[in-house]
Amino acid sequence: MNALQIVTRGIEPIMEVQTRVVSYMTDYMVRRGFRWLLPVMLSSVTDPLWPEPSAERVMRPPEIRAYGSRLRLTHSMILHKQMAVAMGVDRLFVLSPNVRLEDPSADDGRHAYEFTQLDFEMAGASMDDVMALIEGLFRGLFLEMREVVGEVFGREVPEVRTPFRRFTMEEIREEFGDEEKASEAMDEPFWIVDIPREFYDREDPEKPGHFRNYDLILPEGYGEVSSGGEREWEYGVIVRKMKRAGLDPEAFRPYLEVAKAGLLKPSAGAGIGVERLVRYLVGAKHIAEVQPFPRIPGVPALI
Amino acid sequence: MNALQIVTRGIEPIMEVQTRVVSYMTDYMVRRGFRWLLPVMLSSVTDPLWPEPSAERVMRPPEIRAYGSRLRLTHSMILHKQMAVAMGVDRLFVLSPNVRLEDPSADDGRHAYEFTQLDFEMAGASMDDVMALIEGLFRGLFLEMREVVGEVFGREVPEVRTPFRRFTMEEIREEFGDEEKASEAMDEPFWIVDIPREFYDREDPEKPGHFRNYDLILPEGYGEVSSGGEREWEYGVIVRKMKRAGLDPEAFRPYLEVAKAGLLKPSAGAGIGVERLVRYLVGAKHIAEVQPFPRIPGVPALI
Repeated sequence: MNALQIVTRGIEPIMEVQTRVVSYMTDYMVRRGFRWLLPVMLSSVTDPLWPEPSAERVMRPPEIRAYGSRLRLTHSMILHKQMAVAMGVDRLFVLSPNVRLEDPSADDGRHAYEFTQLDFEMAGASMDDVMALIEGLFRGLFLEMREVVGEVFGREVPEVRTPFRRFTMEEIREEFGDEEKASEAMDEPFWIVDIPREFYDREDPEKPGHFRNYDLILPEGYGEVSSGGEREWEYGVIVRKMKRAGLDPEAFRPYLEVAKAGLLKPSAGAGIGVERLVRYLVGAKHIAEVQPFPRIPGVPALI
Repeated sequence: MNALQIVTRGIEPIMEVQTRVVSYMTDYMVRRGFRWLLPVMLSSVTDPLWPEPSAERVMRPPEIRAYGSRLRLTHSMILHKQMAVAMGVDRLFVLSPNVRLEDPSADDGRHAYEFTQLDFEMAGASMDDVMALIEGLFRGLFLEMREVVGEVFGREVPEVRTPFRRFTMEEIREEFGDEEKASEAMDEPFWIVDIPREFYDREDPEKPGHFRNYDLILPEGYGEVSSGGEREWEYGVIVRKMKRAGLDPEAFRPYLEVAKAGLLKPSAGAGIGVERLVRYLVGAKHIAEVQPFPRIPGVPALI
């Protein structure tokens, strides 16, 4: 696609849907007492990201130099969310742009190397609290959107029942084969829980090797739309898990200072991929169709 | 400041104000039919920015390499706003994070090297349309915020009368000396219009050397909070003005392709600095006080 093809695609109706989606989600959070934080794009620390099984190499955040120092572009604001909770902001959300220079092989219609999450965190919350919050959000949003996406896109969005079904990864493998096939087989959103992942997701203290985290999967093959967990907050646990994952604690120094001072708090949260949600609602084949300025892994941004 | 000092500042009450501000502003735009676009952080093109009179050198956007290509971090989304209007999105806004690696000498309490604008654009609008929209927004927001900032911050926000006063830069110089002194002398927001600026701000075809653009200045020395203009949309005019400003049109190639195809439309818009507005409302001395993660020119981000 050249610049003229991108500009003449007729994306307005999708932007109308996106407006309703973002509006609905931000209202939902504000009405529940969440504080609206602004994004951080550059920092000394960012999410290391857990390598996906298919990844050929660990993804590293792009870096720039500023004022004699090295700053990383934001993979996700997870560490900043934890530090904001440490600041006494007990419930917070951010419309957070994330830059992830995925391998070109990640282009599966659902990955963009620049996208926005509605990223939130709640002090003292459990995984059940977060999952119920997201279920309420999706249920209300789908009801709200049924009419407009039906009329404009000829798309039928399900009237979802809550709570959504929960599977462990083991159950997914047994029942469907893999996550992809499960997404194709299901006709309502469902959870996958207990996923081995980054150091900040909480390992169940009563069941080591199991994790108090969750992914929300869309039906019809649309795949993962949200990911979250309860968090680790104890310095010793965090450092041990960083080392276990082969990460250098020095790369997280200021974050670890906050942890060492005992300022991190128990919390749980999640991020919801806005473009993925819009893609599902309008029934687009590829995430690039819902981005006015597409950001496809392997394809440099034209505009 | 070290990481612990940043985390223990007690920023929650300011985040409550920010939540109301962002919520009010986004609702205001959505209710008026504006589409909510998501930010672009990386692109082949970005705002070249007009050098400030005090600047020791032209600011260049930080760059990274991705997929064999060079991408620039967003100075502002002005060129993307024009291209989104070209896509048929006639009214749009973005909560747009901007990265501007200002010279350390720019640290005057109002500059941050990373901040968020509520950035919007309207097809076919005149400068009067945009100024009236912003006046309505500020009038309503100030009324809404008077009580909470009075109680929590002991701060008196004026009940502003619209339309705000308008001055040309020449009038500012004659009456006050400079923009800074005007901001200190005034007790309500006011406009400065007709400012020599970037190629995309429209030169008055009937008065060459004069510009159909505007800055909104806060009173009490808080200075500029919003900046905007009618836009150039004709290829020949844009290229001529780029060359006049010493810019290489090659650095804007895909944008110029869209212009050359006659797809850009007359429009006008503005960006409103969210942190600057919050700073004013809570009466903070320095913009760093309202950023959970301060970004002061010359000081590398700790967290």
